[in-house]
Amino acid sequence: MTEMPRSARDLIESSALAHLVTLNEDGSPQVSIVWVGLEDDEIVCAHLPRNRKVRNIERDGRVALSIETDSLSEIGLREYLVVYGTARITEGGAAELLNRLAQTYIGEGSDFPPMPDPPPGYITRIRVDRIAGVGPWAG
Amino acid sequence: MTEMPRSARDLIESSALAHLVTLNEDGSPQVSIVWVGLEDDEIVCAHLPRNRKVRNIERDGRVALSIETDSLSEIGLREYLVVYGTARITEGGAAELLNRLAQTYIGEGSDFPPMPDPPPGYITRIRVDRIAGVGPWAG
Repeated sequence: MTEMPRSARDLIESSALAHLVTLNEDGSPQVSIVWVGLEDDEIVCAHLPRNRKVRNIERDGRVALSIETDSLSEIGLREYLVVYGTARITEGGAAELLNRLAQTYIGEGSDFPPMPDPPPGYITRIRVDRIAGVGPWAG
Repeated sequence: MTEMPRSARDLIESSALAHLVTLNEDGSPQVSIVWVGLEDDEIVCAHLPRNRKVRNIERDGRVALSIETDSLSEIGLREYLVVYGTARITEGGAAELLNRLAQTYIGEGSDFPPMPDPPPGYITRIRVDRIAGVGPWAG
């Protein structure tokens, strides 16, 4: 596991969205945008249904995620974080995690998910293997 | 090839950044953020050095790219576009394409790349196979 610098942790805990890449059965990439946070030293995101990314990760844990910042590099390009990691799925707790993340992504006091009786769902837990991109976290 | 709706074309031609996924030799995903535009019906982006994504695409043309919008869905989630496509690399013309895209991404009158004698470079040309995400372009 790679230790993440404070700057990368702060971005992951901000309201910036993460583009999460998983691998389909035929090896092609699958992408969706998710809310992310930290739990211990893992990056976490939550899914109510057993969707394609959950099934993909159960079969192949190799994932990548990328997050844009509002900062510009010295030649005027937007800084961004890329995390390469190994993911695993745990069952349950999705609604609670989504609600915690909604306080950051939608705003304090948000009630999310907007449904009376959400299913237990799934949590993706990503161990960070390597950090890349453009910004203070990149070499 | 899939016909792209006007809303998707407009987003690709805007100043929104694209998160481009290619596949490494071992099948793992590789991500970087790029400027994109349209040429005929292909999505194009430019690279001055023969970097990893150029080498990856030469070996395996399966790519994905995702772009955030500023619009929210009815349950308050950010709308975004995902394009799955087949990419190929052509040589030359990178600086000219980067300069054209810089007019959108940095601003009218921008002089990019900021170097006196840029190499011919490479252009990635992506044929769109499938569109996904959350927004007017998605089912």
